[in-house]
Amino acid sequence: MKRNIVVGQSGGPTAVINASIAGVYAEAKRLGYKKVYGMIHGIEGFLQDKLVDLDRYLSDPLDIELLKRTPSAFLGSCRYKMPKIEEHPEVYQKVIDIMEEHEIDTLFYAGGNDSMDTVKMLSDYAKQTGRTQTFMGIPKTIDNDLPITDHCPGYGSAAKYIASSIKEIIRDNESFGAVKPTVVVVEIMGRHAGWLTAAAALAKGIDCTGCDAIYLPERVFDVDAFVEKVKELAKTRHSIVIAVSEGIMTADGKFVCEAGDAVLPVDAFGHKQLGGTASNLCRIIAKETGLKTRPIEFSTLQRAGSHLASLTDVDEAFCAGGVAVRAAADGRTAMMPVLVRANDEPYINWIDLHDIHDIANVEKKVPDEFITEDGCGITDAYLRYARPLIMGELNPMFVDGLPRHIVMKELMSN
Amino acid sequence: MKRNIVVGQSGGPTAVINASIAGVYAEAKRLGYKKVYGMIHGIEGFLQDKLVDLDRYLSDPLDIELLKRTPSAFLGSCRYKMPKIEEHPEVYQKVIDIMEEHEIDTLFYAGGNDSMDTVKMLSDYAKQTGRTQTFMGIPKTIDNDLPITDHCPGYGSAAKYIASSIKEIIRDNESFGAVKPTVVVVEIMGRHAGWLTAAAALAKGIDCTGCDAIYLPERVFDVDAFVEKVKELAKTRHSIVIAVSEGIMTADGKFVCEAGDAVLPVDAFGHKQLGGTASNLCRIIAKETGLKTRPIEFSTLQRAGSHLASLTDVDEAFCAGGVAVRAAADGRTAMMPVLVRANDEPYINWIDLHDIHDIANVEKKVPDEFITEDGCGITDAYLRYARPLIMGELNPMFVDGLPRHIVMKELMSN
Repeated sequence: MKRNIVVGQSGGPTAVINASIAGVYAEAKRLGYKKVYGMIHGIEGFLQDKLVDLDRYLSDPLDIELLKRTPSAFLGSCRYKMPKIEEHPEVYQKVIDIMEEHEIDTLFYAGGNDSMDTVKMLSDYAKQTGRTQTFMGIPKTIDNDLPITDHCPGYGSAAKYIASSIKEIIRDNESFGAVKPTVVVVEIMGRHAGWLTAAAALAKGIDCTGCDAIYLPERVFDVDAFVEKVKELAKTRHSIVIAVSEGIMTADGKFVCEAGDAVLPVDAFGHKQLGGTASNLCRIIAKETGLKTRPIEFSTLQRAGSHLASLTDVDEAFCAGGVAVRAAADGRTAMMPVLVRANDEPYINWIDLHDIHDIANVEKKVPDEFITEDGCGITDAYLRYARPLIMGELNPMFVDGLPRHIVMKELMSN
Repeated sequence: MKRNIVVGQSGGPTAVINASIAGVYAEAKRLGYKKVYGMIHGIEGFLQDKLVDLDRYLSDPLDIELLKRTPSAFLGSCRYKMPKIEEHPEVYQKVIDIMEEHEIDTLFYAGGNDSMDTVKMLSDYAKQTGRTQTFMGIPKTIDNDLPITDHCPGYGSAAKYIASSIKEIIRDNESFGAVKPTVVVVEIMGRHAGWLTAAAALAKGIDCTGCDAIYLPERVFDVDAFVEKVKELAKTRHSIVIAVSEGIMTADGKFVCEAGDAVLPVDAFGHKQLGGTASNLCRIIAKETGLKTRPIEFSTLQRAGSHLASLTDVDEAFCAGGVAVRAAADGRTAMMPVLVRANDEPYINWIDLHDIHDIANVEKKVPDEFITEDGCGITDAYLRYARPLIMGELNPMFVDGLPRHIVMKELMSN
């Protein structure tokens, strides 16, 4: 007889990570699990026994639909780094103890690279100590940098938000055109992998000239070449829009946003909080060319823009949650659902399962065939890859003129 | 027999200024005008005889619908300051000459304060010199700072974008909550009037705690009091989200974004291009409180976000264009359609006409009754005023996963 499960969310939120929670809940209930617990603030809250019975929030199907349309982590997120097993086995034992106490058979964890590492280590500990509890990862990251899977839930919606917003920015900038030539530099998230920035290329179409240049962190950023590129563009174009990744680095290994006296804050994993790349580049352009400039940062809007979510992405996130539950019910552990693509157009894909050990801590960068030879453009091969991921819309439920979300009282009172 | 008209757009674009052009075109055609010309880049382009016959773009009703859903100035905009009549009458004469040459009876100009000044001076010149040509303004500004009219087309959509995005930012920030307390400072447009920033207050609701503080340029900004406010908030809340106008000034009359060594660029009207207020405040908070911070600027996204337009706003913008045409056909000149409100809820309003001389160069600030006594909040009276303006949605026409726009080749090739 089926007992209980627990699901948690970790790392930077996305527009559709909640759809995965909805998928976990719906499939678990269908399969006859007794309780579906949610961890409040991921494994960090779980270690403090902060659990919520999701029946309290999701028993009405309307709430499931609202959850699919609510951005960010409904359960709360964290950036908690698990210690090494051999150094602090008691942390792992505590997770097992809390699971036993609540009769939880499986722990599901939705997140990116760091979160999959947590799942890997928990399952390793359980195996080493002969425990029966199982652990499943659920892919989630706007960064799209998990390996094995064709793409990650969360990426399609972020890409749709970025491409739509870039179109609106280009529309705005070209309205002045010749009477006020302006260079707009748009800064997009992505520390080491340029997937999100590449999405700016999707803006190009019959009604839009698209970005004039796109710089990913996969290529060394050369400030002089950048200035030359802008000068060259300015000879023929009045409205210039350039997309850059927050993670671009110069040859000396420094982030462009670290130029000058900037000191970037650092998180629990030692990752620097980036920002200011567009501003720095605008200052350089203004100084070197005299052109009018405008820096724009999408900031957290690009990962929270559920009002512009991709229906394809929402559905895949939902199904990834469901598949993880089904696999756990079948006795699998230490796995993550991966998206497999058979064809670009028509888009034909399915969901498979893969060993978490091949996934944790591996970062998938944008491959060479998606970047043009001059290093500041995106190829058609990328467009064929990305286009299916932004297809379809899931309209928000508007109440009083604004998208309605579903929220946990526990988080709002924070 | 009816001859021709011309319509132009000026100043910062909005999500619905094109709906006014659609309204002008549709009503003019219905009334039997022969040609509806568009000025390319407003009066600046008109003075260079840059006109386009709008039949080329708008004869299919589908194109009218696309135009309603296309942000920014379809015809191109400008920030051209007309000289004083007595100093350069030849500029005014040139406008009249070009109108005569193209058999244009009426010139329609959609814009804000500066643009209404252009309409006023053109109609003054025509009157002084005994011309028969007529001139009509059409209100357009996200800033909502035109007098007489209850509100301005463009404001409702910007307010809807701001409130929706603030909700998503709050959702994102509270997902970390206690495990990573962060102060987010969101910078919103509005040089002297805080209407747009006030819209951040609309985010509050049953599913959202709303902003923790909102600072408008109508009040002197006190940095010390601001830091104290943040410290006070941090005692009870982990996720803090504060909205500030880009135009807030300290008691010495300096913009907060001018602090330090910032030198702001200046436009043709002598207005400084603001930006960096949120970053400056985040630096101050980090230094004075040690709290983690994140600055966010909506930048041009807030005026170009037609994918999240308010249907009420689109309809009013469309009708304002139509009413201006009807009034001109009736022989009126030097007028602007104004929105008149009878009731908040149910929202009952109509469109009247008002003398442009009472409107040009007058800036309507946020009244005292919309600002709380402590100077960092918004009252319920404002919410009753603003709520009707963000009601309803006009979904984009999505093609290949992105909103489709209608564009003039003349602007794209810029």
